[in-house]
Amino acid sequence: MGWIKVVGIGPGDINDMTLKAYNVLKECDVVVGYTTYINLIKPLIEDKEVISLGMRKEIDRAKKAVELALQGKNVCIVSSGDAGIYGMAGLMYEVVHKENIDLKIEVIPGVTALNAAAAILGAPVMQDFAVISLSDHLVPWQVIEKRLALSAQADFVIVLYNPKSKERPENLMKAQKIIMKYKKEDIPVGIVKNASREGQQVIITTLKEMANYEIDMRTIIIIGNESTYVENGKMITPRGYVL
Amino acid sequence: MGWIKVVGIGPGDINDMTLKAYNVLKECDVVVGYTTYINLIKPLIEDKEVISLGMRKEIDRAKKAVELALQGKNVCIVSSGDAGIYGMAGLMYEVVHKENIDLKIEVIPGVTALNAAAAILGAPVMQDFAVISLSDHLVPWQVIEKRLALSAQADFVIVLYNPKSKERPENLMKAQKIIMKYKKEDIPVGIVKNASREGQQVIITTLKEMANYEIDMRTIIIIGNESTYVENGKMITPRGYVL
Repeated sequence: MGWIKVVGIGPGDINDMTLKAYNVLKECDVVVGYTTYINLIKPLIEDKEVISLGMRKEIDRAKKAVELALQGKNVCIVSSGDAGIYGMAGLMYEVVHKENIDLKIEVIPGVTALNAAAAILGAPVMQDFAVISLSDHLVPWQVIEKRLALSAQADFVIVLYNPKSKERPENLMKAQKIIMKYKKEDIPVGIVKNASREGQQVIITTLKEMANYEIDMRTIIIIGNESTYVENGKMITPRGYVL
Repeated sequence: MGWIKVVGIGPGDINDMTLKAYNVLKECDVVVGYTTYINLIKPLIEDKEVISLGMRKEIDRAKKAVELALQGKNVCIVSSGDAGIYGMAGLMYEVVHKENIDLKIEVIPGVTALNAAAAILGAPVMQDFAVISLSDHLVPWQVIEKRLALSAQADFVIVLYNPKSKERPENLMKAQKIIMKYKKEDIPVGIVKNASREGQQVIITTLKEMANYEIDMRTIIIIGNESTYVENGKMITPRGYVL
Protein backbone atom coordinates (compact mmCIF):
# COMPACT_ATOMS: atom_id res chain seq x y z
CA MET A 1 0.00 0.00 0.00
CA GLY A 2 1.27 3.48 -0.82
CA TRP A 3 1.17 6.62 1.28
CA ILE A 4 -0.65 9.93 0.90
CA LYS A 5 1.02 13.24 1.67
CA VAL A 6 -1.13 16.34 1.67
CA VAL A 7 1.28 19.00 0.50
CA GLY A 8 0.96 22.75 0.94
CA ILE A 9 2.81 24.15 -2.07
CA GLY A 10 2.87 27.72 -0.74
CA PRO A 11 1.35 30.78 -2.43
CA GLY A 12 2.62 30.06 -5.92
CA ASP A 13 6.29 30.75 -6.51
CA ILE A 14 8.26 27.51 -6.19
CA ASN A 15 10.78 29.39 -4.01
CA ASP A 16 8.10 29.87 -1.36
CA MET A 17 7.71 26.10 -1.07
CA THR A 18 9.41 24.32 1.84
CA LEU A 19 12.33 21.99 1.24
CA LYS A 20 10.17 19.12 2.53
CA ALA A 21 7.32 19.88 0.12
CA TYR A 22 9.80 20.15 -2.75
CA ASN A 23 11.38 16.83 -1.86
CA VAL A 24 8.15 14.85 -1.41
CA LEU A 25 6.91 16.10 -4.77
CA LYS A 26 10.13 14.74 -6.25
CA GLU A 27 9.76 11.39 -4.41
CA CYS A 28 6.12 10.52 -5.04
CA ASP A 29 4.62 8.54 -7.92
CA VAL A 30 1.47 10.57 -8.57
CA VAL A 31 0.41 14.17 -7.97
CA VAL A 32 -3.31 14.92 -7.55
CA GLY A 33 -4.62 18.46 -7.47
CA TYR A 34 -6.76 21.31 -8.71
CA THR A 35 -5.69 22.27 -12.22
CA THR A 36 -4.55 25.80 -11.28
CA TYR A 37 -2.27 24.49 -8.51
CA ILE A 38 -0.86 21.75 -10.72
CA ASN A 39 0.10 24.42 -13.23
CA LEU A 40 2.00 26.36 -10.56
CA ILE A 41 4.33 23.43 -9.91
CA LYS A 42 4.49 21.99 -13.44
CA PRO A 43 8.28 22.31 -13.88
CA LEU A 44 8.79 20.25 -10.73
CA ILE A 45 6.61 17.29 -11.63
CA GLU A 46 7.23 16.78 -15.33
CA ASP A 47 8.13 13.10 -14.90
CA LYS A 48 5.15 12.26 -12.67
CA GLU A 49 1.72 10.87 -13.26
CA VAL A 50 -0.56 13.88 -12.74
CA ILE A 51 -4.28 13.85 -12.04
CA SER A 52 -5.66 17.37 -12.27
CA LEU A 53 -9.32 18.00 -11.56
CA GLY A 54 -11.31 21.22 -11.75
CA MET A 55 -12.81 23.48 -9.07
CA ARG A 56 -15.43 22.05 -6.69
CA LYS A 57 -14.05 18.55 -7.33
CA GLU A 58 -12.43 18.33 -3.89
CA ILE A 59 -14.16 15.10 -2.88
CA ASP A 60 -13.27 13.43 -6.18
CA ARG A 61 -9.65 14.46 -5.73
CA ALA A 62 -9.51 13.00 -2.21
CA LYS A 63 -11.14 9.74 -3.34
CA LYS A 64 -8.79 9.50 -6.30
CA ALA A 65 -5.81 9.85 -3.97
CA VAL A 66 -7.14 6.99 -1.82
CA GLU A 67 -7.73 4.80 -4.86
CA LEU A 68 -4.19 5.36 -6.10
CA ALA A 69 -2.61 4.72 -2.68
CA LEU A 70 -4.57 1.48 -2.40
CA GLN A 71 -3.04 0.49 -5.75
CA GLY A 72 0.36 0.85 -4.09
CA LYS A 73 1.27 4.29 -5.35
CA ASN A 74 2.82 7.06 -3.27
CA VAL A 75 0.55 10.05 -3.74
CA CYS A 76 0.98 13.78 -3.17
CA ILE A 77 -2.29 15.67 -3.07
CA VAL A 78 -1.55 19.38 -3.31
CA SER A 79 -3.19 22.51 -1.92
CA SER A 80 -2.02 26.04 -2.58
CA GLY A 81 -0.76 27.79 0.53
CA ASP A 82 -0.98 25.46 3.51
CA ALA A 83 -3.07 22.29 3.13
CA GLY A 84 -4.07 22.68 6.78
CA ILE A 85 -5.68 26.14 6.39
CA TYR A 86 -8.94 25.81 4.41
CA GLY A 87 -7.06 23.23 2.32
CA MET A 88 -7.34 19.54 1.49
CA ALA A 89 -5.98 18.10 4.77
CA GLY A 90 -9.34 17.83 6.53
CA LEU A 91 -11.21 16.31 3.63
CA MET A 92 -8.43 13.78 3.10
CA TYR A 93 -8.74 12.54 6.70
CA GLU A 94 -12.53 12.60 6.50
CA VAL A 95 -12.61 10.42 3.39
CA VAL A 96 -10.19 7.89 4.87
CA HIS A 97 -12.04 7.78 8.22
CA LYS A 98 -15.44 7.44 6.58
CA GLU A 99 -14.32 4.55 4.41
CA ASN A 100 -12.44 3.11 7.40
CA ILE A 101 -9.22 2.58 5.45
CA ASP A 102 -5.92 2.17 7.24
CA LEU A 103 -3.83 4.50 5.10
CA LYS A 104 -0.91 6.59 6.27
CA ILE A 105 -1.59 10.30 5.75
CA GLU A 106 0.89 13.05 6.45
CA VAL A 107 0.30 16.78 6.14
CA ILE A 108 3.29 18.80 4.91
CA PRO A 109 2.74 22.40 6.05
CA GLY A 110 3.35 25.36 3.78
CA VAL A 111 3.36 29.13 3.67
CA THR A 112 -0.30 30.10 3.62
CA ALA A 113 -1.71 32.99 1.61
CA LEU A 114 -1.99 35.19 4.69
CA ASN A 115 1.73 34.86 5.47
CA ALA A 116 2.61 35.66 1.87
CA ALA A 117 0.25 38.64 1.68
CA ALA A 118 1.46 39.99 5.04
CA ALA A 119 5.10 39.80 3.94
CA ILE A 120 4.30 41.72 0.76
CA LEU A 121 2.32 44.42 2.59
CA GLY A 122 4.93 45.02 5.30
CA ALA A 123 4.08 43.75 8.79
CA PRO A 124 0.31 44.01 9.31
CA VAL A 125 -0.11 40.83 11.43
CA MET A 126 2.11 41.52 14.44
CA GLN A 127 -0.82 41.25 16.86
CA ASP A 128 -3.74 38.90 17.48
CA PHE A 129 -5.78 38.19 14.38
CA ALA A 130 -8.87 36.45 13.07
CA VAL A 131 -9.09 34.66 9.74
CA ILE A 132 -12.47 34.45 8.04
CA SER A 133 -13.47 33.05 4.66
CA LEU A 134 -16.30 34.99 3.03
CA SER A 135 -17.34 31.95 1.00
CA ASP A 136 -20.73 30.75 2.21
CA HIS A 137 -20.57 27.68 0.03
CA LEU A 138 -19.78 25.46 3.06
CA VAL A 139 -20.58 27.71 6.05
CA PRO A 140 -23.91 29.54 6.54
CA TRP A 141 -23.70 33.30 5.96
CA GLN A 142 -25.18 34.09 9.39
CA VAL A 143 -22.23 32.30 11.04
CA ILE A 144 -19.81 34.34 8.94
CA GLU A 145 -21.62 37.58 9.82
CA LYS A 146 -21.42 36.78 13.51
CA ARG A 147 -17.69 36.06 13.26
CA LEU A 148 -17.09 39.33 11.40
CA ALA A 149 -18.95 41.36 14.02
CA LEU A 150 -17.26 39.72 17.01
CA SER A 151 -13.79 39.96 15.41
CA ALA A 152 -14.25 43.65 14.73
CA GLN A 153 -15.40 44.21 18.32
CA ALA A 154 -12.29 42.39 19.56
CA ASP A 155 -10.11 44.76 17.50
CA PHE A 156 -8.43 41.81 15.82
CA VAL A 157 -6.45 42.31 12.66
CA ILE A 158 -8.93 40.61 10.30
CA VAL A 159 -7.76 38.51 7.38
CA LEU A 160 -10.35 37.72 4.72
CA TYR A 161 -9.98 34.66 2.48
CA ASN A 162 -12.19 34.13 -0.60
CA PRO A 163 -13.47 37.71 -0.37
CA LYS A 164 -15.51 37.80 -3.55
CA SER A 165 -16.90 35.12 -5.81
CA LYS A 166 -18.80 35.53 -9.04
CA GLU A 167 -21.84 33.87 -7.46
CA ARG A 168 -21.88 36.12 -4.39
CA PRO A 169 -20.23 39.45 -5.23
CA GLU A 170 -22.21 41.20 -2.46
CA ASN A 171 -20.58 39.32 0.46
CA LEU A 172 -17.61 41.67 0.59
CA MET A 173 -19.74 44.80 0.87
CA LYS A 174 -21.89 43.16 3.52
CA ALA A 175 -18.73 42.25 5.46
CA GLN A 176 -17.38 45.79 5.13
CA LYS A 177 -20.62 47.25 6.50
CA ILE A 178 -20.51 44.95 9.54
CA ILE A 179 -16.86 45.66 10.30
CA MET A 180 -17.40 49.43 9.96
CA LYS A 181 -19.86 49.31 12.84
CA TYR A 182 -16.92 48.60 15.15
CA LYS A 183 -13.73 49.69 13.40
CA LYS A 184 -12.96 53.22 12.20
CA GLU A 185 -13.49 53.70 8.48
CA ASP A 186 -9.98 55.06 7.90
CA ILE A 187 -8.22 51.99 9.31
CA PRO A 188 -5.60 50.72 6.81
CA VAL A 189 -6.50 47.77 4.63
CA GLY A 190 -4.11 45.79 2.45
CA ILE A 191 -5.32 43.97 -0.64
CA VAL A 192 -3.06 41.43 -2.30
CA LYS A 193 -4.13 39.66 -5.45
CA ASN A 194 -2.12 36.70 -6.76
CA ALA A 195 0.41 36.89 -3.91
CA SER A 196 3.79 35.62 -5.15
CA ARG A 197 2.28 34.62 -8.49
CA GLU A 198 2.17 36.05 -11.96
CA GLY A 199 -0.07 39.09 -11.95
CA GLN A 200 0.61 40.07 -8.34
CA GLN A 201 -1.19 43.30 -7.38
CA VAL A 202 -0.86 45.15 -4.10
CA ILE A 203 -3.12 47.94 -2.88
CA ILE A 204 -3.04 49.72 0.46
CA THR A 205 -6.28 51.58 1.14
CA THR A 206 -8.78 52.06 3.97
CA LEU A 207 -11.73 50.14 5.32
CA LYS A 208 -14.09 52.69 3.77
CA GLU A 209 -12.59 52.36 0.29
CA MET A 210 -11.69 48.67 0.19
CA ALA A 211 -14.72 47.45 -1.74
CA ASN A 212 -14.00 49.88 -4.61
CA TYR A 213 -11.13 47.79 -5.96
CA GLU A 214 -11.14 44.80 -8.24
CA ILE A 215 -11.20 41.82 -5.89
CA ASP A 216 -11.62 38.13 -6.62
CA MET A 217 -11.22 34.72 -4.99
CA ARG A 218 -7.44 34.82 -5.36
CA THR A 219 -7.26 38.02 -3.32
CA ILE A 220 -6.38 38.24 0.37
CA ILE A 221 -7.57 41.26 2.35
CA ILE A 222 -5.92 42.28 5.62
CA ILE A 223 -7.79 44.83 7.75
CA GLY A 224 -5.69 46.50 10.44
CA ASN A 225 -6.43 47.01 14.12
CA GLU A 226 -6.64 50.40 15.81
CA SER A 227 -2.85 50.79 15.98
CA THR A 228 -2.11 49.89 12.33
CA TYR A 229 -0.50 52.64 10.24
CA VAL A 230 0.99 53.11 6.78
CA GLU A 231 4.47 54.48 6.24
CA ASN A 232 6.66 54.50 3.11
CA GLY A 233 4.10 52.33 1.34
CA LYS A 234 4.15 49.62 4.01
CA MET A 235 1.32 48.59 6.34
CA ILE A 236 2.52 48.07 9.91
CA THR A 237 0.74 46.89 13.05
CA PRO A 238 3.21 47.63 15.83
CA ARG A 239 3.86 44.72 18.19
CA GLY A 240 3.92 47.14 21.10
CA TYR A 241 7.60 47.73 21.77
CA VAL A 242 8.51 51.20 23.02
CA LEU A 243 11.32 52.51 20.84
CA MET B 1 24.48 50.16 1.59
CA GLY B 2 23.45 46.58 2.29
CA TRP B 3 19.96 45.11 2.51
CA ILE B 4 17.98 43.59 5.36
CA LYS B 5 15.86 40.50 4.89
CA VAL B 6 13.63 39.45 7.74
CA VAL B 7 13.56 35.71 7.39
CA GLY B 8 11.00 33.29 8.82
CA ILE B 9 12.99 30.09 9.33
CA GLY B 10 9.92 27.93 9.96
CA PRO B 11 9.17 25.95 13.11
CA GLY B 12 12.62 24.44 13.55
CA ASP B 13 13.51 21.62 11.18
CA ILE B 14 15.53 23.00 8.26
CA ASN B 15 13.30 20.99 5.91
CA ASP B 16 10.33 23.15 6.92
CA MET B 17 12.16 26.24 5.68
CA THR B 18 11.26 27.65 2.27
CA LEU B 19 13.70 27.48 -0.61
CA LYS B 20 13.85 31.28 -0.60
CA ALA B 21 14.69 31.45 3.11
CA TYR B 22 17.35 28.78 2.65
CA ASN B 23 18.89 30.64 -0.27
CA VAL B 24 18.96 34.11 1.32
CA LEU B 25 20.63 32.65 4.41
CA LYS B 26 23.29 31.26 2.08
CA GLU B 27 23.65 34.60 0.23
CA CYS B 28 23.85 37.08 3.10
CA ASP B 29 26.92 38.34 4.96
CA VAL B 30 25.58 38.40 8.51
CA VAL B 31 22.83 36.59 10.40
CA VAL B 32 21.25 38.31 13.41
CA GLY B 33 18.87 36.49 15.73
CA TYR B 34 17.76 35.18 19.06
CA THR B 35 20.22 32.56 20.29
CA THR B 36 17.71 29.67 20.23
CA TYR B 37 16.77 30.35 16.59
CA ILE B 38 20.39 30.74 15.54
CA ASN B 39 21.07 27.31 17.00
CA LEU B 40 18.27 25.77 14.91
CA ILE B 41 19.95 26.85 11.66
CA LYS B 42 23.58 26.50 12.71
CA PRO B 43 24.58 23.92 10.06
CA LEU B 44 23.39 26.33 7.34
CA ILE B 45 25.32 29.40 8.43
CA GLU B 46 28.67 28.06 9.55
CA ASP B 47 30.61 30.39 7.26
CA LYS B 48 28.67 33.54 8.22
CA GLU B 49 29.19 36.30 10.71
CA VAL B 50 26.57 35.59 13.38
CA ILE B 51 25.20 37.99 15.98
CA SER B 52 23.07 36.11 18.47
CA LEU B 53 21.36 37.99 21.26
CA GLY B 54 19.21 36.69 24.14
CA MET B 55 15.50 36.90 24.83
CA ARG B 56 13.84 40.32 25.21
CA LYS B 57 16.65 41.87 23.14
CA GLU B 58 14.42 42.38 20.10
CA ILE B 59 15.06 46.11 19.79
CA ASP B 60 18.81 45.60 20.09
CA ARG B 61 18.68 42.95 17.37
CA ALA B 62 16.76 45.24 15.01
CA LYS B 63 19.14 48.13 15.64
CA LYS B 64 22.15 45.89 15.14
CA ALA B 65 20.76 44.79 11.77
CA VAL B 66 20.40 48.45 10.71
CA GLU B 67 23.92 49.25 11.86
CA LEU B 68 25.36 46.36 9.86
CA ALA B 69 23.37 47.20 6.72
CA LEU B 70 24.57 50.81 6.93
CA GLN B 71 28.12 49.42 6.97
CA GLY B 72 27.34 47.82 3.61
CA LYS B 73 26.57 44.32 4.78
CA ASN B 74 23.69 42.18 3.57
CA VAL B 75 21.86 41.11 6.70
CA CYS B 76 19.38 38.33 7.47
CA ILE B 77 17.51 38.84 10.70
CA VAL B 78 15.73 35.62 11.62
CA SER B 79 12.49 34.77 13.40
CA SER B 80 11.26 31.28 14.08
CA GLY B 81 8.08 30.42 12.22
CA ASP B 82 7.00 33.37 10.10
CA ALA B 83 8.65 36.74 10.77
CA GLY B 84 5.32 38.38 9.93
CA ILE B 85 3.30 36.62 12.67
CA TYR B 86 4.33 37.98 16.08
CA GLY B 87 7.86 38.03 14.65
CA MET B 88 10.57 40.59 13.91
CA ALA B 89 9.09 42.08 10.71
CA GLY B 90 7.12 44.84 12.41
CA LEU B 91 9.87 45.96 14.74
CA MET B 92 12.35 46.02 11.87
CA TYR B 93 10.14 48.44 9.90
CA GLU B 94 9.42 50.49 13.02
CA VAL B 95 13.11 51.00 13.79
CA VAL B 96 13.92 52.02 10.22
CA HIS B 97 10.94 54.38 10.01
CA LYS B 98 11.68 55.96 13.38
CA GLU B 99 15.29 56.64 12.48
CA ASN B 100 14.16 57.72 9.00
CA ILE B 101 16.70 55.56 7.20
CA ASP B 102 16.24 54.66 3.56
CA LEU B 103 17.05 50.95 3.82
CA LYS B 104 15.57 48.18 1.71
CA ILE B 105 13.72 45.66 3.87
CA GLU B 106 12.15 42.49 2.59
CA VAL B 107 10.15 39.97 4.60
CA ILE B 108 10.62 36.32 3.58
CA PRO B 109 7.56 34.43 4.79
CA GLY B 110 7.80 31.07 6.51
CA VAL B 111 5.73 28.26 7.95
CA THR B 112 4.42 29.63 11.23
CA ALA B 113 4.03 27.56 14.40
CA LEU B 114 0.28 27.26 13.93
CA ASN B 115 0.67 25.67 10.50
CA ALA B 116 3.26 23.25 11.83
CA ALA B 117 1.18 22.33 14.89
CA ALA B 118 -1.97 21.90 12.80
CA ALA B 119 -0.20 19.55 10.39
CA ILE B 120 1.06 17.43 13.28
CA LEU B 121 -2.37 17.25 14.95
CA GLY B 122 -4.29 16.32 11.79
CA ALA B 123 -6.51 19.04 10.31
CA PRO B 124 -7.90 21.18 13.13
CA VAL B 125 -7.85 24.53 11.25
CA MET B 126 -10.13 23.88 8.28
CA GLN B 127 -12.54 26.64 9.31
CA ASP B 128 -12.34 30.25 10.45
CA PHE B 129 -9.93 30.80 13.32
CA ALA B 130 -8.58 33.34 15.76
CA VAL B 131 -4.98 33.55 16.88
CA ILE B 132 -4.26 35.00 20.31
CA SER B 133 -1.01 35.35 22.23
CA LEU B 134 -1.44 34.95 25.98
CA SER B 135 1.67 37.01 26.66
CA ASP B 136 0.65 40.27 28.30
CA HIS B 137 4.18 41.63 28.09
CA LEU B 138 3.21 43.94 25.18
CA VAL B 139 -0.63 43.85 25.19
CA PRO B 140 -2.78 44.57 28.28
CA TRP B 141 -4.40 41.48 29.79
CA GLN B 142 -7.91 43.02 29.60
CA VAL B 143 -7.55 43.25 25.79
CA ILE B 144 -6.52 39.59 25.64
CA GLU B 145 -9.46 38.58 27.85
CA LYS B 146 -11.88 40.42 25.60
CA ARG B 147 -10.46 38.73 22.51
CA LEU B 148 -10.72 35.30 24.14
CA ALA B 149 -14.35 35.83 25.09
CA LEU B 150 -15.42 37.18 21.70
CA SER B 151 -13.52 34.44 19.81
CA ALA B 152 -15.19 31.74 21.87
CA GLN B 153 -18.59 33.33 21.24
CA ALA B 154 -17.86 33.34 17.50
CA ASP B 155 -17.10 29.60 17.65
CA PHE B 156 -13.71 30.19 16.05
CA VAL B 157 -11.06 27.52 16.20
CA ILE B 158 -8.77 29.30 18.69
CA VAL B 159 -5.00 29.09 18.40
CA LEU B 160 -3.01 30.17 21.47
CA TYR B 161 0.57 31.37 21.12
CA ASN B 162 2.83 31.88 24.16
CA PRO B 163 0.33 30.07 26.39
CA LYS B 164 2.35 29.98 29.58
CA SER B 165 5.35 31.90 30.79
CA LYS B 166 7.26 31.50 34.03
CA GLU B 167 6.28 35.04 35.05
CA ARG B 168 2.55 34.54 34.42
CA PRO B 169 1.70 30.87 34.75
CA GLU B 170 -1.92 31.73 35.63
CA ASN B 171 -2.82 33.25 32.22
CA LEU B 172 -3.61 29.88 30.66
CA MET B 173 -6.08 28.90 33.39
CA LYS B 174 -7.71 32.31 33.17
CA ALA B 175 -8.05 31.89 29.42
CA GLN B 176 -9.49 28.41 29.81
CA LYS B 177 -12.11 29.69 32.25
CA ILE B 178 -13.20 32.44 29.85
CA ILE B 179 -13.40 30.11 26.85
CA MET B 180 -15.39 27.52 28.85
CA LYS B 181 -18.14 30.09 29.34
CA TYR B 182 -18.93 29.78 25.62
CA LYS B 183 -17.45 26.51 24.35
CA LYS B 184 -18.34 23.05 25.63
CA GLU B 185 -15.80 21.63 28.04
CA ASP B 186 -15.35 18.42 26.03
CA ILE B 187 -14.32 20.19 22.82
CA PRO B 188 -11.04 18.70 21.49
CA VAL B 189 -7.83 20.57 22.18
CA GLY B 190 -4.45 19.85 20.61
CA ILE B 191 -1.25 20.73 22.40
CA VAL B 192 2.02 20.70 20.48
CA LYS B 193 5.29 21.45 22.21
CA ASN B 194 8.45 21.98 20.15
CA ALA B 195 6.64 21.46 16.83
CA SER B 196 9.09 20.01 14.29
CA ARG B 197 11.96 20.37 16.74
CA GLU B 198 13.89 18.09 19.04
CA GLY B 199 11.64 17.12 21.94
CA GLN B 200 8.37 17.37 20.00
CA GLN B 201 5.38 16.39 22.16
CA VAL B 202 1.81 16.04 20.99
CA ILE B 203 -1.24 15.74 23.22
CA ILE B 204 -4.88 15.63 22.20
CA THR B 205 -7.18 16.36 25.10
CA THR B 206 -10.26 18.48 25.89
CA LEU B 207 -10.88 22.08 26.86
CA LYS B 208 -11.61 20.97 30.42
CA GLU B 209 -8.34 19.06 30.79
CA MET B 210 -5.98 21.21 28.79
CA ALA B 211 -4.41 23.13 31.67
CA ASN B 212 -3.37 19.88 33.38
CA TYR B 213 -0.49 19.27 30.99
CA GLU B 214 3.01 20.64 30.99
CA ILE B 215 2.84 23.72 28.81
CA ASP B 216 5.44 26.40 28.13
CA MET B 217 6.19 29.28 25.76
CA ARG B 218 7.23 26.90 22.98
CA THR B 219 3.84 25.21 23.05
CA ILE B 220 0.99 25.91 20.63
CA ILE B 221 -2.54 25.12 21.73
CA ILE B 222 -5.35 24.64 19.21
CA ILE B 223 -8.90 24.62 20.59
CA GLY B 224 -11.53 23.19 18.24
CA ASN B 225 -14.89 24.60 17.23
CA GLU B 226 -18.21 22.88 17.83
CA SER B 227 -17.72 20.48 14.88
CA THR B 228 -14.17 19.37 15.75
CA TYR B 229 -13.73 15.67 16.50
CA VAL B 230 -10.94 13.19 17.17
CA GLU B 231 -10.53 9.99 15.19
CA ASN B 232 -7.59 7.58 14.97
CA GLY B 233 -5.52 9.96 17.07
CA LYS B 234 -6.05 12.92 14.73
CA MET B 235 -7.93 16.14 15.46
CA ILE B 236 -10.21 17.16 12.58
CA THR B 237 -12.41 20.21 12.03
CA PRO B 238 -14.50 19.28 8.99
CA ARG B 239 -14.55 21.93 6.26
CA GLY B 240 -18.25 21.19 5.69
CA TYR B 241 -18.28 18.89 2.67
CA VAL B 242 -21.06 16.29 2.63
CA LEU B 243 -19.46 12.92 1.94
